[in-house]
Amino acid sequence: MGNTLTYKILQAHLLEGTLTPGSEITIKMDQTLTQDSTGTMVYLQLEAMNVDKIQTELSVAYIDHNTLQTGFENADDHAFIKSVAQRHGVLFSKPGNGICHQLHLENYGKPGKTLLGSDSHTPTGGGLGMIAIGAGGLDVAMAMAKGTYSLTVPKVIQVELTGSLRPWVSAKDVILYVLQQLTVKGGVGKVVEYTGEGVKSLSVTDRATITNMGAELGATTSIFPSDENTQKYLTEQGRPQDFTALAADPDAIYDETLTVDLSQLTPLAAMPHSPDNVDSIRHIGPIKIDQVAIGSCTNASYTDLMKVAAILKGHKVHQDVSLVISPGSSKILSKLAQNGALAAMIDAGARIIENACGPCIGMGQSPKSGAVSLRTFNRNFKGRSGTLDADVYLVSPETAAISAITGLLTDGMNSGRDLPAIESVDFTFSDQFIVYPEGTNKENTPVEMGPNIKPFPRNTALGHTVEATVVLHAGNNITTDDIMPSDSRLLPYRSNVPHLANYCFEKIDSQFSARCKEAGSCAIIGGENYGQGSSREHAALAPLYLGVKFVLAKSFARIHRSNLINSGIMPLVFENPADYDELAIGQKLVIEQADKQVQEAVILVKNQETGKVYRTLSHFSELEMQMILCGGKINSIKGA
Amino acid sequence: MGNTLTYKILQAHLLEGTLTPGSEITIKMDQTLTQDSTGTMVYLQLEAMNVDKIQTELSVAYIDHNTLQTGFENADDHAFIKSVAQRHGVLFSKPGNGICHQLHLENYGKPGKTLLGSDSHTPTGGGLGMIAIGAGGLDVAMAMAKGTYSLTVPKVIQVELTGSLRPWVSAKDVILYVLQQLTVKGGVGKVVEYTGEGVKSLSVTDRATITNMGAELGATTSIFPSDENTQKYLTEQGRPQDFTALAADPDAIYDETLTVDLSQLTPLAAMPHSPDNVDSIRHIGPIKIDQVAIGSCTNASYTDLMKVAAILKGHKVHQDVSLVISPGSSKILSKLAQNGALAAMIDAGARIIENACGPCIGMGQSPKSGAVSLRTFNRNFKGRSGTLDADVYLVSPETAAISAITGLLTDGMNSGRDLPAIESVDFTFSDQFIVYPEGTNKENTPVEMGPNIKPFPRNTALGHTVEATVVLHAGNNITTDDIMPSDSRLLPYRSNVPHLANYCFEKIDSQFSARCKEAGSCAIIGGENYGQGSSREHAALAPLYLGVKFVLAKSFARIHRSNLINSGIMPLVFENPADYDELAIGQKLVIEQADKQVQEAVILVKNQETGKVYRTLSHFSELEMQMILCGGKINSIKGA
Repeated sequence: MGNTLTYKILQAHLLEGTLTPGSEITIKMDQTLTQDSTGTMVYLQLEAMNVDKIQTELSVAYIDHNTLQTGFENADDHAFIKSVAQRHGVLFSKPGNGICHQLHLENYGKPGKTLLGSDSHTPTGGGLGMIAIGAGGLDVAMAMAKGTYSLTVPKVIQVELTGSLRPWVSAKDVILYVLQQLTVKGGVGKVVEYTGEGVKSLSVTDRATITNMGAELGATTSIFPSDENTQKYLTEQGRPQDFTALAADPDAIYDETLTVDLSQLTPLAAMPHSPDNVDSIRHIGPIKIDQVAIGSCTNASYTDLMKVAAILKGHKVHQDVSLVISPGSSKILSKLAQNGALAAMIDAGARIIENACGPCIGMGQSPKSGAVSLRTFNRNFKGRSGTLDADVYLVSPETAAISAITGLLTDGMNSGRDLPAIESVDFTFSDQFIVYPEGTNKENTPVEMGPNIKPFPRNTALGHTVEATVVLHAGNNITTDDIMPSDSRLLPYRSNVPHLANYCFEKIDSQFSARCKEAGSCAIIGGENYGQGSSREHAALAPLYLGVKFVLAKSFARIHRSNLINSGIMPLVFENPADYDELAIGQKLVIEQADKQVQEAVILVKNQETGKVYRTLSHFSELEMQMILCGGKINSIKGA
Repeated sequence: MGNTLTYKILQAHLLEGTLTPGSEITIKMDQTLTQDSTGTMVYLQLEAMNVDKIQTELSVAYIDHNTLQTGFENADDHAFIKSVAQRHGVLFSKPGNGICHQLHLENYGKPGKTLLGSDSHTPTGGGLGMIAIGAGGLDVAMAMAKGTYSLTVPKVIQVELTGSLRPWVSAKDVILYVLQQLTVKGGVGKVVEYTGEGVKSLSVTDRATITNMGAELGATTSIFPSDENTQKYLTEQGRPQDFTALAADPDAIYDETLTVDLSQLTPLAAMPHSPDNVDSIRHIGPIKIDQVAIGSCTNASYTDLMKVAAILKGHKVHQDVSLVISPGSSKILSKLAQNGALAAMIDAGARIIENACGPCIGMGQSPKSGAVSLRTFNRNFKGRSGTLDADVYLVSPETAAISAITGLLTDGMNSGRDLPAIESVDFTFSDQFIVYPEGTNKENTPVEMGPNIKPFPRNTALGHTVEATVVLHAGNNITTDDIMPSDSRLLPYRSNVPHLANYCFEKIDSQFSARCKEAGSCAIIGGENYGQGSSREHAALAPLYLGVKFVLAKSFARIHRSNLINSGIMPLVFENPADYDELAIGQKLVIEQADKQVQEAVILVKNQETGKVYRTLSHFSELEMQMILCGGKINSIKGA
């Protein structure tokens, strides 16, 4: 029986465990990347680990999230990250270089390598045939410190591509179709591996669009084979030596298979407010639009933007539409500025904003109240644009550009216009925005820590008796956004947990943080699927700072559960879900002999008010149990 | 006796009064411009005036201040301004078109015309030989409604230019030198008129840099003659028909004269924290810099940016420097994107941000804590960059570019590098970002008013008895920034006075607005020079909203005094300054028979607590008295 490409790469990096789905393995991590909004915490943690040089082959610290700089906080974060990068041998990519995933693809990604990134769209690297995984910041810091990463062995789902795309249909429509078929939960615990004849018709940046937005499937990662298109791309980027051909064995066995006939696809859109709420543009109809935003790590490649320029050239953006374009990297922007494409966009009435994440993460370009906004981005959750009542549709660059001209959601296939083929071009390797750590080290480079950068909170070893007051009785499906809101107001404070903590659960209960501060030692009661959504670590760090000792819920979302354990907060599950109703804010709960009980499958929690004892399930692995005992992952590291 | 160019243009537009310095005249206003941060209030006022079509030859509504859009408020403001512009025949310039003053120079300014703008840097138009004046929003709304403007006849100061500039010295250094000589108060009540042989060596955009930053002299405006360079510029912009030759009579008499030998100037910088704190770069020395910002209405012309590109080409921005560039207009950006200059900047490591006001008004690109930032802008007040402890130096584009490479404040004349001459180029008239009001009018265009846009506050007619509680006892030199702070947090609320009012005087007294709300009817006690600084109308509108009936001070700054009267708030001056010390927060003051007393030179204010009566001076002109009686300027307009 042949191997999938996924298992081939995992096998080649395997350090501990066996490749059995559901079991835990440790692999060698070749590369890491960070962006700045998660990065400050990563580098605070790396500093705390007391390492000298990083253990990966390559680690890069990108600045692409907080680039608006509406106060000193952002620039202080950049300076902090730059200083720590120089201390430990990490490449620093200055603001203005572009979006981390696009840059990593262009300059550093290599077929067959493993990459861990503190950003959920790290799977972009799968377009180059890498195993590229998004993870919490502490895991990325650990990967730098030790060169390893532990994960649960995923299942592998095959998406077999046949045929090729018609004009006006693009890679974005492929992943939108896959999302429509599999839903936002379809990839959980799985790697999505693309195979079939149709793969050859897709360029590396097309593939990267698909693996990037595979994050919206909930997948561990997505991956394409490395073939002649990969070789062509790496050669164009000035680094042909980084190519290796890679593919699954022809007789590889997959856990599931989805077949997609590319030639049957039409332009699609993800309607408000979920990336899997997909329909054809023809069916949605010509709704009037107010804003079009083109860019993001999903759709800001050279080819994407050349298509946009070709569509806009000689036309005028509709007077009721604001069209904003942010190219993916400085290299792309420079090329567009040399070949006339950028001028064509401007002359059509496009706004050019800095090549960064920008509007995709709600940092700027919020549309007007009640607006319809077409975006080439990857997420359209309610309010993510910064405008709570806006309707965001996720579309391809082609659809975005033609619609900007007509002022209506438009199916390019019906526009009567031909779409010229875009020639790929040669780039040179560019590093004008890169600061190399050569000549610097821990001794000669002080940490530069502005006044908004606070040490990350650390837990203490688990006590013999844990007493905690119930500070919140939450419903089902609490998201990490509910726990720790993230918007243009709070993003500048990602390196200041004490400040962020004031806003913890603010939308659910404005008294939450005050109540925690009064209680001192706290417990949260949750319903089903507690902690779903974004992987943000701050949803565990803020409760840790506020004194939360355990969360007692009906069930937990996987990543948040890990983040809680990493922070030394116990995620406990009601054995009898009906017990949930008996608990209330203000009650005192006690776990006696906690340091002993944590080693058992069942942990007893006593309600001091009623005297009743509840049976809760820990489900801790050996490693997790150790982390709880010593008060979180960072405390489990020698010397940290 | 010959005439100055200033008086020639004023004479040609004179409707009422005579050209005697210090007396009041009314002139025909040919054009107006607004930007968005003051514009929403202007268009709310225009709507309230109940006019149909505007009475100017041309009025343009630009969007250039609030373009970051970190929430729905900015885009709502844009939509509101667009809708009102269409209702009344005003051209609307979409965000992305560029900075109002640069755009007006390129596309609409004409020698010999009058222009009123709701932005203090409106004098940029003086580079084309216009009388271009910055004013409060209500005056601009009035100018649109009636086609007229009333002002005090200024004195005229001559700046005679001889010789020509050496390489690495530019127009920015000329105005920095003038600021060094005349100081930030040197232009108050005056127009600065440039004459002499040296004028011929300066292009229109050089001249516009000088007249633009003439605002920092406190001048009413600045003006250059219209000559062959003006004709060349207008021809390059695709509108040679707009040229008229204009100059002062050879025997014109000026109130003062300053002679500047251009050939003697060296690169200069305005040091922290005032535009007139000027010294030579050679003398300041090679201080280490963290940020360089190039752009703004002062220094973002085509020639400025071509010089920057030439200096950066083939070099790399210093690794410790963040270089941000924002071109002045879409036309310039497009040209730079066609001729390779933009690519040269990017390839050197420059960040390209949207062509808007941006960092110059503190909207983004705040430097890190304690940073040294070189900026080609016009103001370096403490904290204006968004970073309170940053040191901002104002320099020329040449100085900024060479310093970005070296990482040190650098005198280009000492750099050993030649500076290539920049060829001017032909542009075509461009209007891809312009929405014309053709086909729209008041009937068929509803006002689009988002939830953050609130009606501007209106006063009521002066009562027979005015009772007010003292809510603030302020010191000397209170600025409009003290009264109504303006930063990236508050700028999005310029169309929401009720919200802004909560932050009124917040830095001086955090209880101010609460105290006003409790008191209901309020009085402020001020020291010398009350209301100095920016002309912002909101420093009168917020107190109006909070119930302030009069301000009793030792003296007032001119523009703020007008804004108070426009709002129906009485600015009263202590006849005996020592009385200032006898008043205190919480005391009740009464003006009996206020509607009669306001017509007298002395107004009696009684302290109800002590029974003592204070003599205060009104200094009201007939027009001002009428405004106070009916409760502000807007109430004095028929039908409003």
